[in-house]
Amino acid sequence: MTDTNSAWGGRFAEATDAFVAEFTASIGFDQRLYRQDIAGSIAHATMLSEVGVLTSDEKDQIIDGLNAVKADIESGTLKWSVALEDIHMNIEKALTDKIGTVGKKLHTGRSRNDQIATDIRLYIRDEIDFLSRELTRLQQGLITLAAAEANTIMPGFTHLQTAQPVSFGHHLLAWNEMLQRDYERLQDCRKRVNISPLGAAALAGTTYPINRERTAELLGFDRASENSLDSVSDRDFGIEFTHTGALIMMHLSRMSEELVLWASAQFNFIELPDRFCTGSSIMPQKKNPDVPELVRGKSGRVFGHLMSLLTLMKSQPLAYNKDNQEDKEPLFDTVDTLAGSLRAFADMVPHIKAKREAMYEAAARGFSTATDLADYLVKKGLPFRDAHEVVGQSVAYGIEQGKDLSEMSLSELQSFSNDITEDVFQVLTLEGSVAARDHLGGTAPEQVIQAAKRAEEKIKERS
Amino acid sequence: MTDTNSAWGGRFAEATDAFVAEFTASIGFDQRLYRQDIAGSIAHATMLSEVGVLTSDEKDQIIDGLNAVKADIESGTLKWSVALEDIHMNIEKALTDKIGTVGKKLHTGRSRNDQIATDIRLYIRDEIDFLSRELTRLQQGLITLAAAEANTIMPGFTHLQTAQPVSFGHHLLAWNEMLQRDYERLQDCRKRVNISPLGAAALAGTTYPINRERTAELLGFDRASENSLDSVSDRDFGIEFTHTGALIMMHLSRMSEELVLWASAQFNFIELPDRFCTGSSIMPQKKNPDVPELVRGKSGRVFGHLMSLLTLMKSQPLAYNKDNQEDKEPLFDTVDTLAGSLRAFADMVPHIKAKREAMYEAAARGFSTATDLADYLVKKGLPFRDAHEVVGQSVAYGIEQGKDLSEMSLSELQSFSNDITEDVFQVLTLEGSVAARDHLGGTAPEQVIQAAKRAEEKIKERS
Amino acid sequence: MTDTNSAWGGRFAEATDAFVAEFTASIGFDQRLYRQDIAGSIAHATMLSEVGVLTSDEKDQIIDGLNAVKADIESGTLKWSVALEDIHMNIEKALTDKIGTVGKKLHTGRSRNDQIATDIRLYIRDEIDFLSRELTRLQQGLITLAAAEANTIMPGFTHLQTAQPVSFGHHLLAWNEMLQRDYERLQDCRKRVNISPLGAAALAGTTYPINRERTAELLGFDRASENSLDSVSDRDFGIEFTHTGALIMMHLSRMSEELVLWASAQFNFIELPDRFCTGSSIMPQKKNPDVPELVRGKSGRVFGHLMSLLTLMKSQPLAYNKDNQEDKEPLFDTVDTLAGSLRAFADMVPHIKAKREAMYEAAARGFSTATDLADYLVKKGLPFRDAHEVVGQSVAYGIEQGKDLSEMSLSELQSFSNDITEDVFQVLTLEGSVAARDHLGGTAPEQVIQAAKRAEEKIKERS
Amino acid sequence: MTDTNSAWGGRFAEATDAFVAEFTASIGFDQRLYRQDIAGSIAHATMLSEVGVLTSDEKDQIIDGLNAVKADIESGTLKWSVALEDIHMNIEKALTDKIGTVGKKLHTGRSRNDQIATDIRLYIRDEIDFLSRELTRLQQGLITLAAAEANTIMPGFTHLQTAQPVSFGHHLLAWNEMLQRDYERLQDCRKRVNISPLGAAALAGTTYPINRERTAELLGFDRASENSLDSVSDRDFGIEFTHTGALIMMHLSRMSEELVLWASAQFNFIELPDRFCTGSSIMPQKKNPDVPELVRGKSGRVFGHLMSLLTLMKSQPLAYNKDNQEDKEPLFDTVDTLAGSLRAFADMVPHIKAKREAMYEAAARGFSTATDLADYLVKKGLPFRDAHEVVGQSVAYGIEQGKDLSEMSLSELQSFSNDITEDVFQVLTLEGSVAARDHLGGTAPEQVIQAAKRAEEKIKERS
Repeated sequence: MTDTNSAWGGRFAEATDAFVAEFTASIGFDQRLYRQDIAGSIAHATMLSEVGVLTSDEKDQIIDGLNAVKADIESGTLKWSVALEDIHMNIEKALTDKIGTVGKKLHTGRSRNDQIATDIRLYIRDEIDFLSRELTRLQQGLITLAAAEANTIMPGFTHLQTAQPVSFGHHLLAWNEMLQRDYERLQDCRKRVNISPLGAAALAGTTYPINRERTAELLGFDRASENSLDSVSDRDFGIEFTHTGALIMMHLSRMSEELVLWASAQFNFIELPDRFCTGSSIMPQKKNPDVPELVRGKSGRVFGHLMSLLTLMKSQPLAYNKDNQEDKEPLFDTVDTLAGSLRAFADMVPHIKAKREAMYEAAARGFSTATDLADYLVKKGLPFRDAHEVVGQSVAYGIEQGKDLSEMSLSELQSFSNDITEDVFQVLTLEGSVAARDHLGGTAPEQVIQAAKRAEEKIKERS
Repeated sequence: MTDTNSAWGGRFAEATDAFVAEFTASIGFDQRLYRQDIAGSIAHATMLSEVGVLTSDEKDQIIDGLNAVKADIESGTLKWSVALEDIHMNIEKALTDKIGTVGKKLHTGRSRNDQIATDIRLYIRDEIDFLSRELTRLQQGLITLAAAEANTIMPGFTHLQTAQPVSFGHHLLAWNEMLQRDYERLQDCRKRVNISPLGAAALAGTTYPINRERTAELLGFDRASENSLDSVSDRDFGIEFTHTGALIMMHLSRMSEELVLWASAQFNFIELPDRFCTGSSIMPQKKNPDVPELVRGKSGRVFGHLMSLLTLMKSQPLAYNKDNQEDKEPLFDTVDTLAGSLRAFADMVPHIKAKREAMYEAAARGFSTATDLADYLVKKGLPFRDAHEVVGQSVAYGIEQGKDLSEMSLSELQSFSNDITEDVFQVLTLEGSVAARDHLGGTAPEQVIQAAKRAEEKIKERS
Repeated sequence: MTDTNSAWGGRFAEATDAFVAEFTASIGFDQRLYRQDIAGSIAHATMLSEVGVLTSDEKDQIIDGLNAVKADIESGTLKWSVALEDIHMNIEKALTDKIGTVGKKLHTGRSRNDQIATDIRLYIRDEIDFLSRELTRLQQGLITLAAAEANTIMPGFTHLQTAQPVSFGHHLLAWNEMLQRDYERLQDCRKRVNISPLGAAALAGTTYPINRERTAELLGFDRASENSLDSVSDRDFGIEFTHTGALIMMHLSRMSEELVLWASAQFNFIELPDRFCTGSSIMPQKKNPDVPELVRGKSGRVFGHLMSLLTLMKSQPLAYNKDNQEDKEPLFDTVDTLAGSLRAFADMVPHIKAKREAMYEAAARGFSTATDLADYLVKKGLPFRDAHEVVGQSVAYGIEQGKDLSEMSLSELQSFSNDITEDVFQVLTLEGSVAARDHLGGTAPEQVIQAAKRAEEKIKERS
Repeated sequence: MTDTNSAWGGRFAEATDAFVAEFTASIGFDQRLYRQDIAGSIAHATMLSEVGVLTSDEKDQIIDGLNAVKADIESGTLKWSVALEDIHMNIEKALTDKIGTVGKKLHTGRSRNDQIATDIRLYIRDEIDFLSRELTRLQQGLITLAAAEANTIMPGFTHLQTAQPVSFGHHLLAWNEMLQRDYERLQDCRKRVNISPLGAAALAGTTYPINRERTAELLGFDRASENSLDSVSDRDFGIEFTHTGALIMMHLSRMSEELVLWASAQFNFIELPDRFCTGSSIMPQKKNPDVPELVRGKSGRVFGHLMSLLTLMKSQPLAYNKDNQEDKEPLFDTVDTLAGSLRAFADMVPHIKAKREAMYEAAARGFSTATDLADYLVKKGLPFRDAHEVVGQSVAYGIEQGKDLSEMSLSELQSFSNDITEDVFQVLTLEGSVAARDHLGGTAPEQVIQAAKRAEEKIKERS
């Protein structure tokens, strides 16, 4: 009889095939959960002693033993065994090696099915809290930069065509709005993560007089779950977390796309610090925006994990199936990808240097104040659609003549509409155009400064 | 000059290619948004008159005209024009045809970019409310059936192997838990949907003295959005909605898988009403569970739409790009798929007929009370792992002899452990096994009845 | 007895629920397959008469009847019935209405399961042939443009940073290589599509003495399939087709990204014809590259369909399940998306106008010939890594001084390496740099012209 | 000057941020490519010496050095450095440490951009060959088992309802057909993988007189690629490989689903060997089909990688971008998943034990010969649709009376149709039903044996 069978061997006539043992073992990746697994076991032992299933002394031995196992893991002393399949059996074996028979009592009234569900929920909850802090740090950097750049004028784009001048700070706060939603989604997700499945046992609950509310409380869960079958089969929380991560990565990919564009010779809107860039092994002049490019590329990774997890759960009958072992690696990689990407951005964003003159100059080209001319005409009494037509003709003329609107003479402008008078030139400046969009959500620098303050306040409410 | 150019033609030297006009037009599908588009325009006109951009009389003409256009659409009188590209231009043209020049003033201080964002948000909000009601109806059916079947015993499965006996009502409540989370996610999603982008205009806000809080209020939005660039480019709410829909479909696919299994000759656990099944064109004896099969198949559809929308937004620079036109069809089809699937399930579930005897008989086979024997031994003093080993040996013996545990004699059982005494036969019955799992979330019928009551109360709190 | 039950009603006690009938019917979308369905029926009837199951007269009546039904469909006379579920039953009913009882004999020795598999395979085969022609047309346009622009110099980018000067024709031929692979993949896919499942019947074959090779031949299939169970359950060919389509769309999205970049004011490398662009309802100066943006957005659509179909088939047991009805809409939409996107590109590409001066000027900035200097030094004897270091220092100096390499004096250059002599200035010109990459696959104009010729020849071999 | 900058540092004012260095380094995973990287370098050096860029002596030193580095890697002596970023720089540094300055000459006329493309193509080619062998081994096992079980009768299912009796061998050959297509797709994919990008250098080719056909030949590639820009940016081959892998996993998930069903107590059609199963930590009676469950779950993993890679490439501008570094991990994990899953199945399939009696008994229930009765009536002269109706009524009667068709008396059967005579009982036996489907692809045992022979021959042609 080999170790392999220690948990379930009684009924089996032959040992597990060596390759199958390795193929089906999860210890290679689920060892990451050792802290959560031990915390769960300590709470379980504590509760078992409170309800009389363990004596106080047995409980103490178990807890001391688990803490010793934890120390062994952290010092690298404990050797993981594939034959013992997973983190649960590895830890239980180590415990029993340390404290003897009493260690075997720990598994009373639970199963690996509720144990792993508990471990992953604890893990994701902790990572949500960590990632929320990193997200906050990135938002903080953006808001600070936005406030500093409220008066910097750049071209606003639609269809990547120059549309209207905007404040660079306004653009940065658009990014912050994306992340603000991500933060809220993480917190909403956390509510559904932080529920205790412990006590669901294999699938139906247990015949021991367990106190599920007590273990939930000991582990910081908001409550115990309602249904044992659902508790061991549910992985919604992992999918929802990965989806939230996919949106974060999608947002970072959008920022990345713009950073890469802006760092190109053609746009030349920003300078990224050398320490966030790399060079070329063949072209000595290159300074590549590696960090945003890599983060942009990493978005696909999390999208893929989301698809992987949805596929995993599609049409699975209740309750636990071995398929579910496949939930962990996508979750772990999602956490790692988010942690790395958010850190890189949080570190980099405060050091983005706006090339203000280049931005301004780009905004001054491309008839970016054409809308202002149209609005001017509307205020003089033209219906909007007619004003649009007039401006369209003057732009066509400007393209032909190589003149922007502000470079035309009054009489040139008047040839398109008699309603145009000397005061038109005020609305054709970039500063006038930007300042005129002076309402909630508009790009007027004063609005940007107010918006940055409100964003700042939302951040402060978090702690 | 053709119709094609009415919105933006002034600057263009040639008309749009006919195929390109058709290829880029959205009127073929965005006509679904006419109610939202008109409601948005009425709110916009109302606000414009309040801030003095329109006279009260102009506003009244516009609102009357819009209502007349709406009537034309609903009576099928209005003919959609591909040359007019989209729902916005089609409605505006119809309005202008009806009320003349004043209709052209409606577009003052807004753009199609904020208009479409407003339309979709209103649309999804309304559909969330509709789908929430259907979800509630399905949950209600499940809970009622669960309460009625609390005492029905079926085999509980893990790995599709008989594991432990459970209450059929308990199994149905596991499904309800999935849907309960879906309901909560829909409400969380709604918070982020119900925010007004109106007033963001093309990308930067507008020079008119608009009151964005007022249009938000008139349209029933919770608040106006914070940033104009973000407002016209953000499609997070659509992705989050589709993700929520993907989880709903994943849950329905899990229920479907079980219904299909249970309706098979091999399981034979349930009977579905004829009117929810179809037959075969070649095999007269077939009664196919078409509804669950089709719903299971439809899960892929919504997973695909989720992937489509994430891909759509990946690395898009700000602000609006034509790519975003591709957001609508996946959203519309997600709504239709959810509406149909939830309706089919809500109609069908109350009529699922449990074949109680077949369920009971299946539970009685397969050593489903083996865990109870192990627990019995633990209570007699054996460490859990040792008890497990003893039971494993007795099961191996039972397989050899073709006897379930409850069919063995006391002396046969005692040959595996001296701790077994006469009272063992109480724990080996199905009823005893189920009743013993008597804690929050356990399968004891009394717990199932309590859980159904709590679930019922949560439903009642909704209205 | 209603129409609903005509195909399978004998065993059923109640009629199908009206909503269920609509929910499970496919006639709303599978009517697109009427040509294939009728062609398949004609081949089937022909074979049945050859093997003696139908008389020659019965066969003639059936074929005449089917042709009459086809005419009715094409003239819009035939009214589709949801109660009749699908295209097969609708056509059979119309046939029986026309020719009476003999029409009921057509379904002998087949099932809707093999019938639909046949229809879809015929449909995809025909669409592959159509799409291959559109792809060829697009490639032809690219190759012609590439040959014309072989001598046009633009900056080549890596990391969107100016890397080395390249021929614009070379860049266009890179796009052609992508499409060349797509063409080959379509042909490989076609081999696996063009196999006849007809005769598999419901799942196991039939007891009639059918000749499967004969129907395969009549329908232009390469051969009959090997296994009846596989024949009715296999949808690999649809997934492979969608995957091939996903790669085509991915390639078009890459071209689109570049076209959008190049059409921006910042790059200003190309002009797209007005008739492929649209304008703005609020900004009269805009000329938006709608076609490439929309095509870029449409890539997500096909990625989503691919995911949808993979999910659909995941873990389906043999043989046919109703889930499979969900295969058609993703396939149809993939075909439509490809057809529209390829047509738009094939129409547009020949009219892309290179702004040669702007391209050249951009290439002249950004130290694009730095690699040439490094290669020059290596040829003078420096190890590559050392040469790279020298050039890196001279570039750093150039950035400081605002001078490109070709603008430095000999002595300035010599301050970085004594190996530099007067002949260096030849390698620092754009023309010299491009011409020097004179090997298979290199960007030298002569190589580009040769490559265009080879590409042209591959195209010619197709017909 | 730190190691970090050795490849591209000359232009940079500050060292790379330590976290950024780690975040952007690929050595953690691309070390798997060391064999391919060294093989590529040896071919490159050989060619460089042939064209006179290296002396013969330099070439020999480099090749000896590379072989020594390879030995160091395989003995675990070489320590990977994150500061050196990737496998290329790590190996080059190790080479230079061994052989001095001449090592620096190796990188002449190439770039890491074409180097990594070469490495991955070599890697995938080799893995395709390995996986093709495993696939062949699995097919071989299936075909052998199918031939042995040609006469075993089981119920064939559609909609998981008993449809018609089929040969178990026929069912296994349906699986083989899926894998046969997978094999063909792998070979088609290989054609597009096995093309040499080496010599494309950074993006535009090189100024050295390289011989790309020669390196292609030395590395066993079919030919050199046509376009340098495409060569460094193309990752189609990786996507196509992953797609092929996704289909393989989809097929294995379908087999898995059936194995799990068949191993359930309810179906009880097969026995899996103990060594491919695992047990339960809480339920001693369980024997869980872990291998098929896990493989079924792993399908999502490869679907996700496919989505990840498509997303990665979506809308990337030419030529190489850092995003592409994200291609490797999904590819590596796809290879590992396929290798493990195919091995597990190839090992397990030959040991699947059919429970022939249980299969037969299941086929005998459920009116599985109803179609045969309908065919019988058609042969007696009834139109198919009318025969179907008659059989439907007799099945309805049988359900009521609890009798299968073969259990009814002649007079009972005749009450549904006067055309029924004594000979009907021959067609109502399972053996008669199965044997009657005697055409290409049909389930008649003789056809199954022939099909197994043809499948066997196709396998033999491979080597």
